[in-house]
Amino acid sequence: MWLQVLGAAAGGGLPQWNCSCSNCLLARSSSSRVSPRSQSQLAVSGDGVSWYLINASPDLRDQLSRSSQFHPDSTHGLRHTPVAGILLTSADLDHILGLLLMREFTSVSIFATASVHKVLESNPFFSMLDRLPGQSRRQTLAHGSTVTLGCGLQATMIELPGNFPAYLDDQARSSLLRSEMTIGLVFASGAGKRVAYLPALPAITPGLLSTLESCDVILVDGTFWSDDELQRLQPGTPTATQMGHLPIDGATGSLRGFAGLAPRRRIYTHINNTNPILDPHSVEHRTVTDLGFEIACDGMEIEL
Amino acid sequence: MWLQVLGAAAGGGLPQWNCSCSNCLLARSSSSRVSPRSQSQLAVSGDGVSWYLINASPDLRDQLSRSSQFHPDSTHGLRHTPVAGILLTSADLDHILGLLLMREFTSVSIFATASVHKVLESNPFFSMLDRLPGQSRRQTLAHGSTVTLGCGLQATMIELPGNFPAYLDDQARSSLLRSEMTIGLVFASGAGKRVAYLPALPAITPGLLSTLESCDVILVDGTFWSDDELQRLQPGTPTATQMGHLPIDGATGSLRGFAGLAPRRRIYTHINNTNPILDPHSVEHRTVTDLGFEIACDGMEIEL
Repeated sequence: MWLQVLGAAAGGGLPQWNCSCSNCLLARSSSSRVSPRSQSQLAVSGDGVSWYLINASPDLRDQLSRSSQFHPDSTHGLRHTPVAGILLTSADLDHILGLLLMREFTSVSIFATASVHKVLESNPFFSMLDRLPGQSRRQTLAHGSTVTLGCGLQATMIELPGNFPAYLDDQARSSLLRSEMTIGLVFASGAGKRVAYLPALPAITPGLLSTLESCDVILVDGTFWSDDELQRLQPGTPTATQMGHLPIDGATGSLRGFAGLAPRRRIYTHINNTNPILDPHSVEHRTVTDLGFEIACDGMEIEL
Repeated sequence: MWLQVLGAAAGGGLPQWNCSCSNCLLARSSSSRVSPRSQSQLAVSGDGVSWYLINASPDLRDQLSRSSQFHPDSTHGLRHTPVAGILLTSADLDHILGLLLMREFTSVSIFATASVHKVLESNPFFSMLDRLPGQSRRQTLAHGSTVTLGCGLQATMIELPGNFPAYLDDQARSSLLRSEMTIGLVFASGAGKRVAYLPALPAITPGLLSTLESCDVILVDGTFWSDDELQRLQPGTPTATQMGHLPIDGATGSLRGFAGLAPRRRIYTHINNTNPILDPHSVEHRTVTDLGFEIACDGMEIEL
């Protein structure tokens, strides 16, 4: 199984267009202390040839162009892509806008829960993926079932206690299942290797830890260090918990919650520009790495 | 007046993620023969400090990060941007998706026709621009009226015989004015300099030429060289005319139509990846430049 982190930042990226927090200033400077990161995007493959995208970030066009593994093979004709499909873990904008960058008359398979498919179908923008017959193929991820991907991997969803996307009003929410709005995914190879991907983790549920204990690598929500991280910088903004992101720090945070999962690889990703773990000179960075956690960056490759 | 072409390609960019046309292959190669271009984006300023974006491309995050003129000034606090507003010339996805990248709790002014505002308001995604009081300010562009921008420029719309965005169904279209769906813009400085921007030009109307005769610089739709350019490469796709883009070549094309506007600067932009003018070795490139037209690239700056 091969994985590539194409983007390790949360929505807004690093640096964020309107932000002068210390991480953004460092990411814009010529120093290499804080590496720029694009918005959260993972690619996974069971054969190293055919790739599945996990979510579709707004930076997808640039992310696919950076690595030749994702370029079309011209021996397959004018239109081709090594991207065999996209699996969505939510309907959040930073996870779905990239689908609209894949509208150039090439067929795409989209795997999502029934509720996330419903959000896409109710938004006219996504009709652009259906301009040619058979252009997009929708496949449903359901609790307790496993889908087999073309590259030989199996994918299973992890149900999470998430929230509805902030852009949906009450009427839209009433036709959706909250339990289908935020999921995690486990990818399993034929050789028995298992990887979990949880870019938004609202809380650590009793069943979750046992699922993660079966995994070799866990890529997990590193959006915020603390619950009031955004609020302290900009009053009026929501807390981490309100945004569906369990903070890293604190009594119920993911750092303590996942401490017992060592020696499995535990990698923080989907990291907000404000998160102090991004700065290698910070106490928080050292705390995380001293406990054996890794901090994802764009271009990180994992093979297992 | 200052202008910066932040993106000179049509939707999909150059190279396009799924395309092996000769331009895309050259743009991906190490040769510098065909320069990569991001999706159509212009910035304009009357004072060189405060900038207005013309349309909001899906590549906006990267485009704003490339040039320090668009970076926040940290002496203004945590949240700041030199971007004072965004003027929309249509509701096409490659002109509006970038608005959703500007949702990080900073106030933005959006100038558009009433019909384009209606399209945005009817799509729940754009509610993300209204999460804080006063976050987005909508201002209306109307036929025959001029708006004064904070940077000292005046902007006037040019009505064009455009079409509805392909993603809107008949019901949505019935509440919109077709004449408001595609517009051009003329920017005028206090010193009397005038620039026209027409990233989508469906046809050359009688009134248009006289408007353009009053301009010093004309940035115009260079999407397609020929009407059947896409169809020849991929049967089943629409013609240039069906997509609202007058081709460059042909008896009614923009090359002949704007020949009489010399010696004004006439610059082709919003250029599709398939367009042969992008390759400096092509006959079409030579034809265009021999007639005194310019071909925009990312980073092109104009001062007048």
